[in-house]
Amino acid sequence: MRLLILGTGGMANKHAASFKEIEGVSVVGGVDVVPERLAAFCSEHGIPNRFASLEEALAWGEFDAAANATPDAVHHPTTRQAIAAGKHVFCEKPLATTAAACLNIVNAEVASGRHLVQVGFMRRYDKSYRLLKQQIDSGNLGEPLMVHCAHRNPNVPDVYGGDMAITDSFPHEIDVLRWLLDDDYISAQVIMPRKTKHARKDLDDPHMILLETRKGVRIDVEVFVNCPYGYDIQCQVVGEDGIGYLPEPMSVLLRKDAKLSHEILQDWKLRFIDSYDVELQEWIDSVKVGVVRGPTAWDGYFAAVTADACVEAKHSGQIVPIRIGERPAFYAPAALKPAA
Amino acid sequence: MRLLILGTGGMANKHAASFKEIEGVSVVGGVDVVPERLAAFCSEHGIPNRFASLEEALAWGEFDAAANATPDAVHHPTTRQAIAAGKHVFCEKPLATTAAACLNIVNAEVASGRHLVQVGFMRRYDKSYRLLKQQIDSGNLGEPLMVHCAHRNPNVPDVYGGDMAITDSFPHEIDVLRWLLDDDYISAQVIMPRKTKHARKDLDDPHMILLETRKGVRIDVEVFVNCPYGYDIQCQVVGEDGIGYLPEPMSVLLRKDAKLSHEILQDWKLRFIDSYDVELQEWIDSVKVGVVRGPTAWDGYFAAVTADACVEAKHSGQIVPIRIGERPAFYAPAALKPAA
Amino acid sequence: MRLLILGTGGMANKHAASFKEIEGVSVVGGVDVVPERLAAFCSEHGIPNRFASLEEALAWGEFDAAANATPDAVHHPTTRQAIAAGKHVFCEKPLATTAAACLNIVNAEVASGRHLVQVGFMRRYDKSYRLLKQQIDSGNLGEPLMVHCAHRNPNVPDVYGGDMAITDSFPHEIDVLRWLLDDDYISAQVIMPRKTKHARKDLDDPHMILLETRKGVRIDVEVFVNCPYGYDIQCQVVGEDGIGYLPEPMSVLLRKDAKLSHEILQDWKLRFIDSYDVELQEWIDSVKVGVVRGPTAWDGYFAAVTADACVEAKHSGQIVPIRIGERPAFYAPAALKPAA
Amino acid sequence: MRLLILGTGGMANKHAASFKEIEGVSVVGGVDVVPERLAAFCSEHGIPNRFASLEEALAWGEFDAAANATPDAVHHPTTRQAIAAGKHVFCEKPLATTAAACLNIVNAEVASGRHLVQVGFMRRYDKSYRLLKQQIDSGNLGEPLMVHCAHRNPNVPDVYGGDMAITDSFPHEIDVLRWLLDDDYISAQVIMPRKTKHARKDLDDPHMILLETRKGVRIDVEVFVNCPYGYDIQCQVVGEDGIGYLPEPMSVLLRKDAKLSHEILQDWKLRFIDSYDVELQEWIDSVKVGVVRGPTAWDGYFAAVTADACVEAKHSGQIVPIRIGERPAFYAPAALKPAA
Repeated sequence: MRLLILGTGGMANKHAASFKEIEGVSVVGGVDVVPERLAAFCSEHGIPNRFASLEEALAWGEFDAAANATPDAVHHPTTRQAIAAGKHVFCEKPLATTAAACLNIVNAEVASGRHLVQVGFMRRYDKSYRLLKQQIDSGNLGEPLMVHCAHRNPNVPDVYGGDMAITDSFPHEIDVLRWLLDDDYISAQVIMPRKTKHARKDLDDPHMILLETRKGVRIDVEVFVNCPYGYDIQCQVVGEDGIGYLPEPMSVLLRKDAKLSHEILQDWKLRFIDSYDVELQEWIDSVKVGVVRGPTAWDGYFAAVTADACVEAKHSGQIVPIRIGERPAFYAPAALKPAA
Repeated sequence: MRLLILGTGGMANKHAASFKEIEGVSVVGGVDVVPERLAAFCSEHGIPNRFASLEEALAWGEFDAAANATPDAVHHPTTRQAIAAGKHVFCEKPLATTAAACLNIVNAEVASGRHLVQVGFMRRYDKSYRLLKQQIDSGNLGEPLMVHCAHRNPNVPDVYGGDMAITDSFPHEIDVLRWLLDDDYISAQVIMPRKTKHARKDLDDPHMILLETRKGVRIDVEVFVNCPYGYDIQCQVVGEDGIGYLPEPMSVLLRKDAKLSHEILQDWKLRFIDSYDVELQEWIDSVKVGVVRGPTAWDGYFAAVTADACVEAKHSGQIVPIRIGERPAFYAPAALKPAA
Repeated sequence: MRLLILGTGGMANKHAASFKEIEGVSVVGGVDVVPERLAAFCSEHGIPNRFASLEEALAWGEFDAAANATPDAVHHPTTRQAIAAGKHVFCEKPLATTAAACLNIVNAEVASGRHLVQVGFMRRYDKSYRLLKQQIDSGNLGEPLMVHCAHRNPNVPDVYGGDMAITDSFPHEIDVLRWLLDDDYISAQVIMPRKTKHARKDLDDPHMILLETRKGVRIDVEVFVNCPYGYDIQCQVVGEDGIGYLPEPMSVLLRKDAKLSHEILQDWKLRFIDSYDVELQEWIDSVKVGVVRGPTAWDGYFAAVTADACVEAKHSGQIVPIRIGERPAFYAPAALKPAA
Repeated sequence: MRLLILGTGGMANKHAASFKEIEGVSVVGGVDVVPERLAAFCSEHGIPNRFASLEEALAWGEFDAAANATPDAVHHPTTRQAIAAGKHVFCEKPLATTAAACLNIVNAEVASGRHLVQVGFMRRYDKSYRLLKQQIDSGNLGEPLMVHCAHRNPNVPDVYGGDMAITDSFPHEIDVLRWLLDDDYISAQVIMPRKTKHARKDLDDPHMILLETRKGVRIDVEVFVNCPYGYDIQCQVVGEDGIGYLPEPMSVLLRKDAKLSHEILQDWKLRFIDSYDVELQEWIDSVKVGVVRGPTAWDGYFAAVTADACVEAKHSGQIVPIRIGERPAFYAPAALKPAA
């Protein structure tokens, strides 16, 4: 399979490295508006063809699928172009920076009649979440009733401000919990606890976000991005018959320095490092058979609508309904399966 | 110290047994309106004097303090009588069945000018909660920001109905969290998750109860009383600098039957069994020096007001403010210390 | 019950404090050869009668039982005197400093025809060991096959030298494992691992001690007394059907400083602090009915013989048989029960 | 890289599946003496060339390296042939069925002057062991002093008899502990605990195996192959400064059925399933640069000599020295590194 990489920043490097380990694929082209950056990227990864724009690459046309690692604001136009050209595209999250733009992509894909777009919510590919989902799907926990979560970062860069706890950090939970529960959200509420002394003056931290699902499951997620002890993702599914906890990352239990301890990761990049590789491998596998098995454009749109509702809920202090039209039949699970 | 036991039911038997192990006290009288029950109780525990009413016992007068284990509805009049007679009284929770009656007791105690009433919130005496409080008080966690709790029972008897999850189960959290955090509540909200199939048709279960404190701490408590796996009390305090978890009851870790497991208790009576003894021992110690170091009548009143707000919040679906007058100076911590 | 305390050092103070909390007992006399120390001790604990020797106290005679907290070398003569006078005696471990002296005490007690001597192996009274024993006795683990243990101290004082790892630290395991397994030892071997850099030049550390029981159970105990991370007692019983682990002391689980951790105790006095109180309470209870339910003189003798075999095994590098005569019928469990 | 697979049994199928996922390799031939089995195997895996013997395949010659998954008794002659032909060979454990045959292979490889042989001890590629090794190598534990291990299987097939606990199960520990500790063994002892009721009459179970290393580390390994609760590999390294435990396999923590539990695996094939893939990937990577970075023929020989000493120790009841000549300079770590 011949791949194109759009953008040449951090995630593009990560994608290029992952693709090298995947049997049967080769990256045949790179795209970036800055020629020097593009040249350096292609040279480092041994990519033969360089393009200043996706238009150029499409005019050339000698590739089967594209990995979209452009800046967030560029996701929408480039993904639309890929759809128009009938190319499979793996788009890093967010699918687009507004719900309206996400909906445009959804409509374009539906109109194209082909399943072309996958969104980069990598937690669905994480081993620990998959083990938890197996417990839910097996019926071992009974029907889920409540989910208690935490999304904790040791710190955030200065560019992380405003409502990014909701629009940047929280979408991972938005997507992975919909997938875990096989359910949709119908309302959101945001509660602002006492602010930590470790947060910048202009940053609200932590947030408590409450979601209600169509089936009545109640979710609470603590988003705490100046949590000094480490990067820590927690998820506890309370079912009618039992409770399952997201496994902790594997580490050596130590008895040392007056403590019986496990190390907690400090760097979010390490927590889901393996899931990025699995994600791309499975994306390649599904592209080969012309389907999308991972997060769809619809999932990307749902995440955007939910995040918008949470932002409104935070600023209004109200419980905000999440209103979204019916899922197009195009995105029904049965429609996403490969033809027999 | 000469003790009177009011009531002769389950808790009265427990009290009588505990008092036998305490150095320097003797139970000198029992009170019950049913003569046969009273006779059996006094005979079993070797209690020399029997009274058909507290009035009778007060007329006799040869005791120093009373343990009030009467039915809930009788707590108010009997505790008022004890105050009027200047007797120390340990009153099982709830202090009274309405906030108004609790306030009457508070006012009577303040008017008496003496610290006489302790309420039976035994979790403050539990080793695991005390260890958690040490972590908070030491500053090791930084300022608390959020508290995530669960109060789970395997099942409830048929008499447990209506809003008893709030008025009967939840008050334990109401009291112990105020004590843990050294804080007061200012609003309540109740969220009703999808109902478990294990609950009776007429019973709502589970509840998610949210409290806000004066200092801005946000508390969420899952109250789930048809949780088939066992009786399980969880509490996680998220502070600015770290998180502390309420210790689990001590049990043998097993590798057996394809599981690495700890047993979970099934019976609430076993979870806090030791704390009842500590509670009475410390009550006796404080009565000796004429003070109340445990939960006061004010704490009992606060619990009633908070539970009322939660019931209103559940039925209205709204965030309900918790309005309570200023704490009388009489109940300030400094006022509760023994004179030098 | 009227008690005498022999010796006025550290353990004597601990005993005096424990006895104050026990209903129905009073310490009526203290014994010490140093008048000033005796005066200070009796004054501090409100003990009315002072004696320069046990002979003096016995001549006076107004006590029912004695707690023997004299120096180790004095255990033998004083315990013999108590037996001769028909007084119950609780003797701190070791029962005596040689196996021969222990056997003298055994023979004297058997000859007296009365059960008078209990030895202060307090681990049998520890909650964690009792929970583990319940698992074994219930049959939940099947027949025990192997036991893996560790006895770790953060450090030892300068007086701790020679073979004290075997003769001073290890006897706790010798006694508690015999009790846990209801079994006796038939051979011992000692293996000397690489020495830790944290041990003094003249001290061997750690030791690996292997015991074989009559039923064929194989025990390995790591005794490591310069283990810098803390005081830590581990015991894992491998049965035919499952494995049980000695519970860790209760502590708050923390997420802090890049660690998910439990604190490990540094001070051995804290690990078994509660078991000392339980031990004395149960000793008093058994003295009241004229029996010995705790560790007997025979158990003290067995510990001494086993420790001697381990010392020989260490120095010879050989597997050393543990030879001890048959247990006198006097110490059979049935003989230790109270008369109906 | 063009690969040959020798043998077509269970491991051969596993290898064939693993090689399909590795970028840049193709299996070009299969070898088996049974034509039907060979045909079925090659057909299933799309392998183009079939050979009735390694001789035939070598005469053809169009491959770069071979994976040896023949029966144990065939390992020696085939590995020798591969060396003689200058082909890289990955040989499943054991390297050969006798220490003498292993030494023949070692001598042949040394004589060839090329590093060609890797032995299939896959635990070195397991994530949990690698995390533990990182702790040791970082110095975080100080110098290792003792290692406590367990190798537990829920059951064994009827063909598993005699001393296979030592010769078949235990070699995994023999190899992985040498690698973990970067040390060699100098003596062995085997202790036979009480036999479990779950073992067949003709099978000894469990074994306690003790090893002493050149640096003085003392290792105890419980090998228990009728351990009904599951397949469970434990390893605890006690260092001068701290203790590290082999991580448990990742699983969902559950609260269910009166237990707080993790599942324990029942099937050994699942425990190290990922390590087989890593092992072959890294073997391919090292073959590409003409080196052996994994277990060498020398390691295979050391395992055989150690197992022989353990068998002798078991039957004699004695501590048996492990005598092995000096490691040839050919196998020194520096010699195994790729040329600059």
